[in-house]
Amino acid sequence: MLIQEMTWQASLDFLARTQLGRLACAQGAQPYVVPIYFSYNNDHLYTFSTVGQKIEWMRANPLVCVEADEVLSSELWISVIVFGRFQELPDVPEWRSERSLAHDLLQRKAMWWEPGYVRTILHGTERPLVPVFYRIHVTEITGHRAIPEPGNAV
Amino acid sequence: MLIQEMTWQASLDFLARTQLGRLACAQGAQPYVVPIYFSYNNDHLYTFSTVGQKIEWMRANPLVCVEADEVLSSELWISVIVFGRFQELPDVPEWRSERSLAHDLLQRKAMWWEPGYVRTILHGTERPLVPVFYRIHVTEITGHRAIPEPGNAV
Repeated sequence: MLIQEMTWQASLDFLARTQLGRLACAQGAQPYVVPIYFSYNNDHLYTFSTVGQKIEWMRANPLVCVEADEVLSSELWISVIVFGRFQELPDVPEWRSERSLAHDLLQRKAMWWEPGYVRTILHGTERPLVPVFYRIHVTEITGHRAIPEPGNAV
Repeated sequence: MLIQEMTWQASLDFLARTQLGRLACAQGAQPYVVPIYFSYNNDHLYTFSTVGQKIEWMRANPLVCVEADEVLSSELWISVIVFGRFQELPDVPEWRSERSLAHDLLQRKAMWWEPGYVRTILHGTERPLVPVFYRIHVTEITGHRAIPEPGNAV
């Protein structure tokens, strides 16, 4: 196969048309990686979560990495990797417009996270939904695309 | 939707039947996440890579996290997260049997990584294949399964 580097713009375009990624954060020397849904806009990935380990870790260390890919086969895939910084969008007046933007962007992509929709039962008890909206500021981005090698003509 | 915790055994069973995951490692406070193909056997994920950033980072800090999932929709998915430790399988006599096991396990899953198969052209020049075989020793595993909520009968 051939692996090609994607341009900065092609990598951003890929982020803009996808919504599922994997977010890595770290506490001390221990990394942690979880799947996230996000919506890309203007150098930021917007998303939300309920409070939990990853939110606590990112509040303590905002350096993160997000990988998004489209793997059709082992030799036909796209993978984009973002280094970025966690920024919480707290429910206070000065962040209202950014929270509202996050809400709109996520709503455009999917309804799955609507409050009434995500009743979650864990350990036999219902977990209340306390959404934490946040965004990842993209500080570095790289993308690679693999394609099957064309014939053997020299 | 309902999110259920998977048992330790169900989580391992899931790892055993999948092959694509995302591996997170960290250097200092900076995490890094990349897709990997692996083959699970006896508390270890076997895989290989050419030398590069993730190998250098894991040699310096062996603590890693691997996430594997099957996302059919936003409310029908499985996600398994492993905390583990990087162990290189160097090309020396005392590691020969483990390298050979890694080779056999990976071969059973896919042929994509066969040396003649992965001629890689990056930056316009051919990158030689210098495979680094390694395994992740699973020290902790958690799995969650989401299913759509059954009706509204109380």
